[in-house]
Amino acid sequence: MNAGFLQFCPILGDESQNIKNIALNFETAKDPDLLVLPELANSGYNFESKKQAILLGKSIEESEYVEFLVAHSKNKNLFIISGFLEKENNKLYNTAVLTGPSGYIGKYRKMHLFMNEPEYFEKGNLGLPLFELGGFKLGILICFDWIFPEVWRILALKGADIIAHPSNLVLPYAQQAVPVHGMINRTFNITANRYGNERGITFSGQSILSDPKGNTLIKAPAKGDSVEVTKLDLELARNKWITPQNHVFTDRFPAQYTDLIKA
Amino acid sequence: MNAGFLQFCPILGDESQNIKNIALNFETAKDPDLLVLPELANSGYNFESKKQAILLGKSIEESEYVEFLVAHSKNKNLFIISGFLEKENNKLYNTAVLTGPSGYIGKYRKMHLFMNEPEYFEKGNLGLPLFELGGFKLGILICFDWIFPEVWRILALKGADIIAHPSNLVLPYAQQAVPVHGMINRTFNITANRYGNERGITFSGQSILSDPKGNTLIKAPAKGDSVEVTKLDLELARNKWITPQNHVFTDRFPAQYTDLIKA
Repeated sequence: MNAGFLQFCPILGDESQNIKNIALNFETAKDPDLLVLPELANSGYNFESKKQAILLGKSIEESEYVEFLVAHSKNKNLFIISGFLEKENNKLYNTAVLTGPSGYIGKYRKMHLFMNEPEYFEKGNLGLPLFELGGFKLGILICFDWIFPEVWRILALKGADIIAHPSNLVLPYAQQAVPVHGMINRTFNITANRYGNERGITFSGQSILSDPKGNTLIKAPAKGDSVEVTKLDLELARNKWITPQNHVFTDRFPAQYTDLIKA
Repeated sequence: MNAGFLQFCPILGDESQNIKNIALNFETAKDPDLLVLPELANSGYNFESKKQAILLGKSIEESEYVEFLVAHSKNKNLFIISGFLEKENNKLYNTAVLTGPSGYIGKYRKMHLFMNEPEYFEKGNLGLPLFELGGFKLGILICFDWIFPEVWRILALKGADIIAHPSNLVLPYAQQAVPVHGMINRTFNITANRYGNERGITFSGQSILSDPKGNTLIKAPAKGDSVEVTKLDLELARNKWITPQNHVFTDRFPAQYTDLIKA
């Protein structure tokens, strides 16, 4: 299958313009089956106030942005994962939606919030869903989730071949770490980052797609729109034997790992 | 404090020669407070038979090798972590011993065994000890343990500032992964690898010392003896705040991580 990322620079508070920019980028994508977009791609990131964020937030059902993704997914027969400012019962979530040829499929809500995000968002309350998409299995993490090895591990243990990672990264670390999460869990990881500056915050671009051996297969520049797609050999992600006698999952000793769940 | 690694090429089955080679290398070490040696540094790795390994194995108490390390630790006032072929009740363990200015301190037994090691060794049965050494806290892992993010995490959660990692690496992955384990757990990691060829197995050298930001501070060549020591600012390892509002441990959600301990 072909998978990749769409890196662009969302405009804060201008969903219509963001849809236009994404649509233009979609046209340059080379036959993807799966495309990952940045975190909060419809809304921008650094809200002026909670009030602004609440006004911008939408439920999945009433969102023109999700409708736009669904239409493109159906039209082009592909899966899209995109960051989305979700409002439900007047509460906000930093969400990623998944759409496909059949329409809207599901969502993940960011579990580990960054900097002042807790002033805006509820913590993700949907756990770590695995999406079985007929042909491959997908997990989703969002941005700062990257620093917690537990969540990459759990998605891989659930069977994820690919982990989509919509991001608005500011620190310089994730592009080094994400391929290693993929190496030790034998998954393909796709970090779709944004670039540009927003009210004093600079985002680092350099979206990456890495393979189950820890190689970075494609990497975007630090600035500029970039839509890159490459072919994935999913068998690489399904083969958890790192040597003929060592399986990265069955060689684990869960009984020795109980310290990981101590409160 | 000053810490580093001693990379050399153990001779299979010739402990006396290995002691001589290590002693020569000790002389070139620039004022270390802590030095990490490779896995099975006293015995070599690729035994001809279980019988050979049993004959080479010693208990801590009766080992001239451990005695040699203790003498050097006392003489030079430093901590040494070295791989050691340990025999106890006629069973073998792939062990790392820790010695210091006061003498023998303790040991770790390799938990995750590589390739045909289960034919030789029992699985480590001592858990993941943390050594509080007056001034710093130390954890120990051995070679293939590197691919299991759980054990780096647990040692860091226990308070390790430094994780010593005696190794006989053959795969090319660990040198990329170990600095990332350090980055996400904010620890100094020291991989002391061997080099050379032993009955058909080639070891990859390139011993590394990485810091809590994921930087590789020192790295040995792929071949050749190498003793490198650098100054560590332990405060870097004790500061688990990756932003003023994000702590890499307290931002975790252990209740969400229970899948990690499922059998």
